[in-house]
Parts: sequence; C-alpha cells; structure tokens
Amino acid sequence: MDLQAIADDIVRDLAPRLGEGKVADYIPELAKVEPEQLGIAISTVDGTTYQAGDAQTIFSVQSISKAFMLTLALGKVGETIWRRVGREPSGTAFNSIVQLEHEHGIPRNPFINAGAIVVTDIVLSGHRPREAIGEFLRFMHYVADDDSLYIDEKVARSEQRTGYRNYALANFMRGFDNLKHPVDHVLGVYFHQCALAMNCVQLSHAGLFLANRGTNPLTGFSVVSPRRARRINAIMLTCGHYDGSGDFAFRVGLPGKSGVGGGILAVAPGKASIAVWSPALDETGNSLLGGVALEMLAARTGWSVFGT
Amino acid sequence: MDLQAIADDIVRDLAPRLGEGKVADYIPELAKVEPEQLGIAISTVDGTTYQAGDAQTIFSVQSISKAFMLTLALGKVGETIWRRVGREPSGTAFNSIVQLEHEHGIPRNPFINAGAIVVTDIVLSGHRPREAIGEFLRFMHYVADDDSLYIDEKVARSEQRTGYRNYALANFMRGFDNLKHPVDHVLGVYFHQCALAMNCVQLSHAGLFLANRGTNPLTGFSVVSPRRARRINAIMLTCGHYDGSGDFAFRVGLPGKSGVGGGILAVAPGKASIAVWSPALDETGNSLLGGVALEMLAARTGWSVFGT
Amino acid sequence: MDLQAIADDIVRDLAPRLGEGKVADYIPELAKVEPEQLGIAISTVDGTTYQAGDAQTIFSVQSISKAFMLTLALGKVGETIWRRVGREPSGTAFNSIVQLEHEHGIPRNPFINAGAIVVTDIVLSGHRPREAIGEFLRFMHYVADDDSLYIDEKVARSEQRTGYRNYALANFMRGFDNLKHPVDHVLGVYFHQCALAMNCVQLSHAGLFLANRGTNPLTGFSVVSPRRARRINAIMLTCGHYDGSGDFAFRVGLPGKSGVGGGILAVAPGKASIAVWSPALDETGNSLLGGVALEMLAARTGWSVFGT
Amino acid sequence: MDLQAIADDIVRDLAPRLGEGKVADYIPELAKVEPEQLGIAISTVDGTTYQAGDAQTIFSVQSISKAFMLTLALGKVGETIWRRVGREPSGTAFNSIVQLEHEHGIPRNPFINAGAIVVTDIVLSGHRPREAIGEFLRFMHYVADDDSLYIDEKVARSEQRTGYRNYALANFMRGFDNLKHPVDHVLGVYFHQCALAMNCVQLSHAGLFLANRGTNPLTGFSVVSPRRARRINAIMLTCGHYDGSGDFAFRVGLPGKSGVGGGILAVAPGKASIAVWSPALDETGNSLLGGVALEMLAARTGWSVFGT
Repeated sequence: MDLQAIADDIVRDLAPRLGEGKVADYIPELAKVEPEQLGIAISTVDGTTYQAGDAQTIFSVQSISKAFMLTLALGKVGETIWRRVGREPSGTAFNSIVQLEHEHGIPRNPFINAGAIVVTDIVLSGHRPREAIGEFLRFMHYVADDDSLYIDEKVARSEQRTGYRNYALANFMRGFDNLKHPVDHVLGVYFHQCALAMNCVQLSHAGLFLANRGTNPLTGFSVVSPRRARRINAIMLTCGHYDGSGDFAFRVGLPGKSGVGGGILAVAPGKASIAVWSPALDETGNSLLGGVALEMLAARTGWSVFGT
Repeated sequence: MDLQAIADDIVRDLAPRLGEGKVADYIPELAKVEPEQLGIAISTVDGTTYQAGDAQTIFSVQSISKAFMLTLALGKVGETIWRRVGREPSGTAFNSIVQLEHEHGIPRNPFINAGAIVVTDIVLSGHRPREAIGEFLRFMHYVADDDSLYIDEKVARSEQRTGYRNYALANFMRGFDNLKHPVDHVLGVYFHQCALAMNCVQLSHAGLFLANRGTNPLTGFSVVSPRRARRINAIMLTCGHYDGSGDFAFRVGLPGKSGVGGGILAVAPGKASIAVWSPALDETGNSLLGGVALEMLAARTGWSVFGT
Repeated sequence: MDLQAIADDIVRDLAPRLGEGKVADYIPELAKVEPEQLGIAISTVDGTTYQAGDAQTIFSVQSISKAFMLTLALGKVGETIWRRVGREPSGTAFNSIVQLEHEHGIPRNPFINAGAIVVTDIVLSGHRPREAIGEFLRFMHYVADDDSLYIDEKVARSEQRTGYRNYALANFMRGFDNLKHPVDHVLGVYFHQCALAMNCVQLSHAGLFLANRGTNPLTGFSVVSPRRARRINAIMLTCGHYDGSGDFAFRVGLPGKSGVGGGILAVAPGKASIAVWSPALDETGNSLLGGVALEMLAARTGWSVFGT
Repeated sequence: MDLQAIADDIVRDLAPRLGEGKVADYIPELAKVEPEQLGIAISTVDGTTYQAGDAQTIFSVQSISKAFMLTLALGKVGETIWRRVGREPSGTAFNSIVQLEHEHGIPRNPFINAGAIVVTDIVLSGHRPREAIGEFLRFMHYVADDDSLYIDEKVARSEQRTGYRNYALANFMRGFDNLKHPVDHVLGVYFHQCALAMNCVQLSHAGLFLANRGTNPLTGFSVVSPRRARRINAIMLTCGHYDGSGDFAFRVGLPGKSGVGGGILAVAPGKASIAVWSPALDETGNSLLGGVALEMLAARTGWSVFGT
C-alpha cells in the first residue's frame, strides 16, 4: 500500500472542492484563516510519516486538545474522573447548556466544551493557572516529541474576550459545585490549551501513542497503558465529533477528534495516526473536507475498526 | 486462547451476581422470565461455536432484531434510508419522544424505538403486514442458518396490548408523514419482529456475517457487502445500547446491540460473533450481567476494536 | 357607551386587513373555510347582544370547547381533576409532547390538547362515547340556551382521519395510565366536541355565565358557583391562548379561549361575554384579526381585568 | 368590610402553620432569616394602610424588585423593550437556562432571572453601575414615598459571591448579544436591586400606583399611564410567580410578584396594594404562607380580577 500516493491523490482529488463549508467565525482570530487549504499527514506505527498538501502549515488545534487534556487528567486522577463527567454522546451541539441543566451540572462527556472545562479544572488541581498551562505544553512536547509546539496567545486572548458561552457553561457548573477553582482560572487554562498551534505532521506524531498501545513508537515513551489507549479511542469514536460523531463513525470508521480550527486527529489502532486539516466546517462544526479526506483514506487503505 | 474455558469461567465468576438488576416489567410476558439466568455463545469466523451457561435457553430478542431489520431495509432501499432516519446517538432513553418533536419526526437512529418503527415501515413497503413478518422470519432463518427460529405470538400480543408508547411514537411520526403505512400495520409488524425467539447459540450464528465481512462463514452465504457490514457495526457501536452506548464502547470496546429481553449481540470484526443473555437490566435498559460478561470476555480475549 | 357602534367600527376598521394570517390547514375540512371573514358579538350581563360583521356565520369552535368541557368535568369530579392535569401555562405549542415526557404524562393545563384529552377522559367516565358526546351537546344547548347547536360530523371525521398528533398524545398519556378509557373512545369524543359548530352570537351567549358569577342572565340558570367561574376565567387568562397567552393578557387584558377555527371567546367579568371570529391565524395558532378586534374592543370600552 | 379585622384574622389563623416550607438557602445571607414570621399590609387606593403581624420587619425584596425595574425600563425605552425580552410565561424554573438556548438568548419574560438581567442592562444604559443603582433607589423612594429605603450591601455581596447561575445566564445572553454592557456591570446592578430592603407597609405603598391607574394616591405622583399600569399587572399575573403563576392566578386571582426573600406584592386593581411576607418557600420558590395569606384575603374580601 503506497500511503504517499494515497495522501497525494486525496489532496489532488479534493482540490476542486476547496472553499466548501464555512470557517468558524465566533472566535475572531480564527475567522481570519484562509479557507482554501488542505493538509494531511499519516504517521504509521513503524515510525514513518507521509504528508501531502498543507501538512506543514500551523493551525489552531482547538478541541483536538481535549483528547490530550483527557489523557493528562486520567494520569492525575485515574478513573475517578468519571464521577464528574460522563462518557455518553451528547445528542446536542458542542456548546449546548440544555443537557447540563437536565443532568445537574455533570457534562455528558469530556469532548464537549462543558466536559473539557471540567477536565481542565482537574488538571488545574494543585497548580496556578500559568503552571497548568505549562504542564499541558510540556506534555504536548513529550507526546509529539517536538519542543517547538507553542500556544498562540493571540488566539487564546481572542477567545477569552468573546467566549461568553464558555463562561456561561463554567459558571453554570460552578453553581452545581462541579468546578473547584474560580471560573476565571479554569477558563484561562481552557482557552490556552485550545490555542495550541500545530501542523498536521506534528499532530499525527502526537496521536501515535493512541494507535500503538499507549506508547509513542518514535520515542519509545509509554504515555498510557494499552487499556487506557483503547478507552480514549472509544470516547473519541462515540463523542469526538460532537453531534456528528455517529456520522463520522459511519463514514470513516475510525476514532477521531475534531476542532473548530478545521483539524481532525484520527486513529487507526495498530496502524497509524492521521491528522488532516482544512479550515472550513460543516454544519455540525467539523472540518468538511477534513472529514471527506478521512473517508477517502479509510476507503483506499481499508482501515476501519469495524472490519476489513 | 481457550475460548471454551473463558466462557465457562465467565459464567462461573458471575454466578454469585445472578439476580442483580431488574427484569423489564413493561411487557407483561417478559416480566414472567426467571431473572437468575446467564448464557453465552461465541461463534468464531472459522465456524466454531463455544457455549456456556444457559446458552440454549430461548429468550425474546426484542431490540436486537433492530440490527437485522436494518440489514433487511438497507437491502431494500439502500442508503436512501438515511433520508428518513438519522445515524447519531440519541442522548435519551430508548422510547423518548422529545427528540422527535425537536427534529420534526426524523428519529435519531435506527436502533431507538422510533427509528426501528420507521425501518419497519420501509420493510413493509409493497407487503401486507403478515407477508412482511414472513419475510423477516425467512431472513432470520437464512442468516442464522436455522429454520427453527419462530416468533412468539404471546409476546407479540402482550406488547401490542400495552405498547402505548410505541403507538405514541408511530402516530407522532405519521403526523410528520414519516410513516407511509397505517400505524396499526407498522406496529403489528414491529411487535412481531421484536418477539423473535432465539437462544444464544442461534443468535451468535445470526450475527456472524457482521464479523466476517458480510458473509456467513457457516453457509458461505453473502448477506451484505463488506462495506455495509462495517457500517452496520459502526451504528451498533455508537447507538446499540441506547443512552448507555458510550459506556458500552468504553467498557467492552465492541459493536453491540442489546434488547430488553436481556440479550446482547456483540461483534468482534474478523474474529467472532458473541451472544450473551441474562434477563435483569441496568438502569439504561441493557442487560446488566450481559454487559459485565462481555466486558470480561473482551478483557480476557483482548478483543477490542480500539486496539490490542 | 355605544357597544353597537364600537362593534361596527371594529369590523369596518379591520376590513382592509382581512386576509392577513393563515387558515389552519392541518384539518382538511377547516382548510376550506374562506379566510376573509370577521364577526363579533357582545352579550352584556344585562341580557343585550350586539353583533357586527359575520356574527351569524357558523364556524368550528375547536379548542374553545375546551373551556366548556372543563366546566363539565369540574361538575363531575370537582377539584380532584387537578390530580390528573395541571393549571400552569405550558410555554410550548398547543400540541407539544415534550412537556408530557418531562412531567410523566400529566399535562400542564386543561387548555392544551393533552390536557383537554384528559378532561375528555373524565367526562367519558361511566358513559359510552356516543353518550358522552350527547351529554356535552346537551350541556352546550343549556349554557347557550340554544337547542340548534350541533356537531359537524364532517369536521369530526376529518380530524379523526388526520389527527395523528392527538393519537400520539393520547397513547403517550395512556402509557402513563393518565387515560382510563381506550384511546379510540377518548379521541372519538374529543374530536366530536372540537367539531361543535356555532356562530359568534351563540358563542357569546354560551360564555355569559363566566361573566356573570356563574349564572346565565338570559335564562337565570346557574351553571357553576361564582368561585368556580372565577377560577375558570383564571385558567383562560393564563392558558387560553397556548404559547400566546401572555401576549393576549398583555394586549387585551381579558380571560379568553381561542380555537384554530378562528374563534375566540373573551370574558369581561361583571360586564360581558364577547365572541369574535376570523379564520386566519397568527403564528401561535390564534385568530390574528380576532385578537386585534378584541384589543380594539378592550381599548375602546376600557374593559380590562387589570384596571381601568 | 373591616380590612383590619381581616388582616388580623389571617395572621392569627396562620400562626399554627408558621414554619411550613423552607427558607431559600442558595443566598447565604437569606438563609439566616428566622422562618417563623408573617406580615401583611394592605394599602387601599383611598390612602389607608392596614397592617398585621410582622408588617414592619425589614426583609429582602429580591425578585419583587423586578416589577419596579420593569417599570423603570419601560419609562426609558418604552415598548421597544419587547424586542429583547418576551412576555410569555416560561413553563420552567426561575433560573432555567434551557429556554434561553432554545429561544436564542431572548428571555421569555422580564420576571424570570434572565429577563430581569436584560431589563437591568436597559436601565444601565448611559450610566455607570453605581449611578444605575442610585437611580433605582431614588425611584423606589419616589414610588414608596419613603426616603428611608436602602439596599442591603451584605445581601448584595453575598449573592455576588455565590450567584453562579446568574453569571451563567448573563454570559449566555451576552453571547447572543442580548446584553450590551459587561456582565460584571450588569450583575453588579442586578444583585443590588435584588437586595433592596423593605417591610410590608413600605412595599404596599410602593405598589399602590399599580392599583390606582398608575398614580400613587398617597402623593398624587403619576408613575405610569393607566394603560401601562394595566400591562404591568398583566405580566405580573401571567409571569409573577415563576412556574407557579398559573396556580397563584387560580387560587388568589390577583396580579402578584413574589421574591425568594418570602415577600409577595399583590395588586387588586381599583382597590388596594397588598404586601405579605413570610420567609419559608414552597417548591416553586414562592412564599408558602404568603400565598396562603393572599388566598385567604382574596376569599374574605371578594377581591379577584376574575369576577365577584
């Protein structure tokens, strides 16, 4: 299987569709991104990386970081995390507050905004906000084996100024005592981890441990146990694309986590970690061409967790 | 790997917990079932079947039949089915009507009651109710390679008399023109296909095509294409356990479909089809010990779609 | 105060607006009604009736009958009725089922469809459906002092054939055991009482007891106690216009009950009973020009329960 | 009619029930109030005030101030206010956020928290927070004809520290651009106007203009036009008791506005303004004995907007 050719073909086949969808506009800094871009990077568990298109262009990972924050939080408090956040698909938009009221401040899963804010609160334990941000960044350096990763302060501040919905979610959960730190501290860290800047190559490296039984094959570092890697993959599959998760599972057949910056990290267990990026989104808030690219990749490689 | 020993061990290990949970009582006939039973059958793609406990006791498959009805409907109308039913997890109970109102009569997925009623309406096209029931039963004979399967009329009639919620769902969708046949016809077929009687061995045979690229290895019959088998598995994983689907994916890591009769069909793609049965349910309406048995099986075999 | 002149002026002032709004089309028989009609009748507690426009044209009262059915049910079971139906505004559309699921089959008030179906179930107690319909019709003859009132069988059957949403509501509540009779019986009566045919003059007579301490001044018949009349008025004010009840109270300031046939009955306690009719509806399902006519009448007469 | 005797009798009759219900505990300062208190003051439009029980004990008016803030805001922007807040009963709890999501940041009415926060945002226009608080307090001095009214800073600060739900509501609406000022400013004013301290006598004076065609008969000051007074009364009747508004209209039959401090202001148009206070609340968050006292008063005086 010539993965380089597959990646090249996908980028070429999708070129005519560049521009479909709509760039997220609720975070002013993200609204400025040129939509007609598409990158793809495939890192296999044997340590090779294939790339095509805009695979080296830096973008804002946004909610993709939720998968790494969950990993970090599980490392800190283990399975007790599930007392404060569920692991069921939400059936609602990424920033819905309706479910929180019906379920008394317990978010449905760690991959909607409310859930990730609780996860951030956990990562913040025993730290000042600045330290927690530092810890997260170091963890990303470690899993990606790349110390050049950085947080884009401009994006973080842009979201901090306009992220009213997240302030609403956080205050709402604080009212149910499901946040232990001041809302401003938690959201300070939250907006910063969302503002992590990466390119597809770096992101595909960072996700490799999830495809390789918890261990990064590039470095040999064990990030989590095989069991925990499987479980994070399971949550990515059922909850990783907000209210488009079922559709992604149906069309692509791989665990994945998307971000409103237009990136998607997908995991083919035992085979590869794949990062795609194209800024324009579909109506569920997931990268439109990124999803199509992964659908093509899955079809052409035969990679699917649901059978060959 | 000694699958027989694993099956025996699970049944033995769970014996002390028999009686936990609560048998479904809203269908009078089901309420009569003795709760302290547990069966397990594992059919591997090479054609061997392992069984333990009450694997030969007949039970009412109930919602497990939704997976087979979906297969039948896809064979009839192909992907056009998705115009009338979604494929997203619902985030609500199996019989909720709230989502239907918010989403104008389009059920979230084919594995909640409303969705399965639409699927039934599709299977009913061009048939009288009795013929549609016959077609379904012949299809089950075919996929299970077992002509002894039958529909328990007593259960069907018991549900027909008391299934007010399903009448509400069906009428509600008919009001949105998402049912094409009279409500009584559709529900007549629906209650009958739910009342299919099987034991674990038969059910594990019937599910084998989903584990084996769409083809039943016992008979060599091709039921669906490999791609369709993957897609049905995807929907089972994201939607197969109602509002406990995320939890099942997390704990077991396999596509599965449960029924309120206490059965669960699980699929380990490329490896095996597994049927478990224990009548008492957890609070999300899924077999309590059935779920635990599958969690044990997944842990002991290493079977998981999310990695090894 | 020259009520005849006021009524004439309103009809004349609104003539240019005839045709605004939209005739209800979900009941086929009602969809045939010519929209450009407007009638008004004012019956004062001293026994005089003023009329203008199409005040003698017969129309389908539809939900206005809910006020009379409530009166009848209160007469049968008294305040125990509130165990099975609430008396709070719903905050949702007249035919919403969402609230019923959240509140376990207890409708919010007797003036939304679900609530009126429960009220019908109560009126049906101890009767066959045909008898209950007869009892209702006799009650209407009595309160309106007019034996010519009749039920339009064509409208009743039209709704019976297409009233899927009401079948959904009824089955849903039956599932919660909040209907005691078979759904078909209850809805048979329900659709018939909705299909009562009246003109504005007759309707204004029928409502007089609510304006006159429970007694019809035309006949001297006591229908209910003064206290009960006040209470029925209270429910009309808070719940009589579905999710437009607050707006009606704000603009008109009188208790009122509307129907999708385009009629509205309003009560000025101690002064008059007013019936208006114009078939085209606003977006909350209430007569558009009927509401405007009552707003004009209230402004020009100074009638308001909220002060002079 | 001897109103003094009626007031005395009510206080005496309810003495055995003092202690029923539950003092609001989500605002720490309010939780400290001794529950076994009951006061009543009746101010008639001819300028006489009757009082009984703890009618001179100062309490926190809390949401009752929403009626006065609405009056103030209507004076500023007139009927344009209805572009930013509805006037329909909510069908949900006073602090629910569900409706706001479904209706895109437009609160249902000015008497639930979200609506009152929007009203506060309007009153704040062109002011600094401190000035807006000052304006509100001066307005209260004016309508109550009592310069001794003050805002309890301790209560304001207590709520400011713990009012997470209100921060959630405000941020949520700010995200929909339905707040024009910074959340902290708006809530600063909001918490202060809630913290207004009054006794029953003062409150009954302050409400007199609503009973007397918009003019305070004690001072002759015209506060609003007769039409606006009627409209404020209408909103009080349909929305003044949160999700218990229908019940209050049914039982008492007068427009009223309650607060979690245990106070209720009720208006008998053309007759009197009535203030009751008893700190322990029922399950809808309204004063339990306060409601009962008003029910007794309405029954014994015959005051009801729904007839005599």
